[in-house]
Amino acid sequence: MINYPGKAKSNYTKTVNYSNRGMDLEELINLSNEYYLQEDIAVIYKKPTPITIVDASFDSHGRVITKAYFKEPSTLDYNGLYKGRYIDFDAKVTKSKTSFPLSNLHEHQYQHMKNIINHGGITFLIISINNKYYYLDGLDIINFINTNDRKSIPIEYIESKGIEIKAKIKPRLDYIKAIDEKYF
Amino acid sequence: MINYPGKAKSNYTKTVNYSNRGMDLEELINLSNEYYLQEDIAVIYKKPTPITIVDASFDSHGRVITKAYFKEPSTLDYNGLYKGRYIDFDAKVTKSKTSFPLSNLHEHQYQHMKNIINHGGITFLIISINNKYYYLDGLDIINFINTNDRKSIPIEYIESKGIEIKAKIKPRLDYIKAIDEKYF
Repeated sequence: MINYPGKAKSNYTKTVNYSNRGMDLEELINLSNEYYLQEDIAVIYKKPTPITIVDASFDSHGRVITKAYFKEPSTLDYNGLYKGRYIDFDAKVTKSKTSFPLSNLHEHQYQHMKNIINHGGITFLIISINNKYYYLDGLDIINFINTNDRKSIPIEYIESKGIEIKAKIKPRLDYIKAIDEKYF
Repeated sequence: MINYPGKAKSNYTKTVNYSNRGMDLEELINLSNEYYLQEDIAVIYKKPTPITIVDASFDSHGRVITKAYFKEPSTLDYNGLYKGRYIDFDAKVTKSKTSFPLSNLHEHQYQHMKNIINHGGITFLIISINNKYYYLDGLDIINFINTNDRKSIPIEYIESKGIEIKAKIKPRLDYIKAIDEKYF
């Protein structure tokens, strides 16, 4: 299976780098979600990557897509259910050690986070920065954007408003603990 | 854009039929979801179709998938948020005018519905049968399966336990009304 995304040729280096670094975090979260499901703690899945199919045919394995493009997701990558609450979040990896560039959060993803909050859901980002993982709640992200002209969230803000998530064995990345701390 | 799914060549006729008939219902639901989002009533999306990417390359439009297969979804197609509640459902179309074959609901989808209920979410099927649309709650589906050896749910059960959803202009299929009736 091949990593994604990758939109325009000109972004090639940048996107491939993000994608590779992103995979580690994505894998940690996927393993955590499997654990939460097995232990009947939460029901949270990664959404499949959205694509636009241009051509398809059949081979010995069945229906095969022979041409398709990646689409930019209009929501966040993970959603599900925990203690009766709707959960919706994304994993973001940044190379910068001092701030999280808001260009990593697309405009429609930001709008989606606002929608989730307005309808009573829980939304957040898991940010990998400077070899640490943080839970940063959607409300804190929206507050930052509403009160700042800055194009990136400084690490001091993430450290003070966010909750550090330690990598461990089971689950690999216990982000539910941060949800508990914030909401339950 | 090409319709899906389609797994094995031997299922070709069956799957293509289902897929074509399913598209109409899927389109009605997608349009309804757009309406709910625009009107700020609910935040519900169809999940992208899960695929396994085998090969990809680049062309003038960017990264292009050149070989991929469809995967069987392990959850339901739609999920989201309404009045603070987690919503998770699927659209099912049946040719039969007298019953809904339970073979349309995969074992892992059934398990998923049970998980959703156990964690406080709302789950249901929208069933298109005999030119009508019904909301059938997950609890009623589980109750039926637990108390019956039948391989299909007779239309009488759907009519008595389900809620008919009338097609209209806005939204095209007001299934939220059925959720209101059942839960709010």
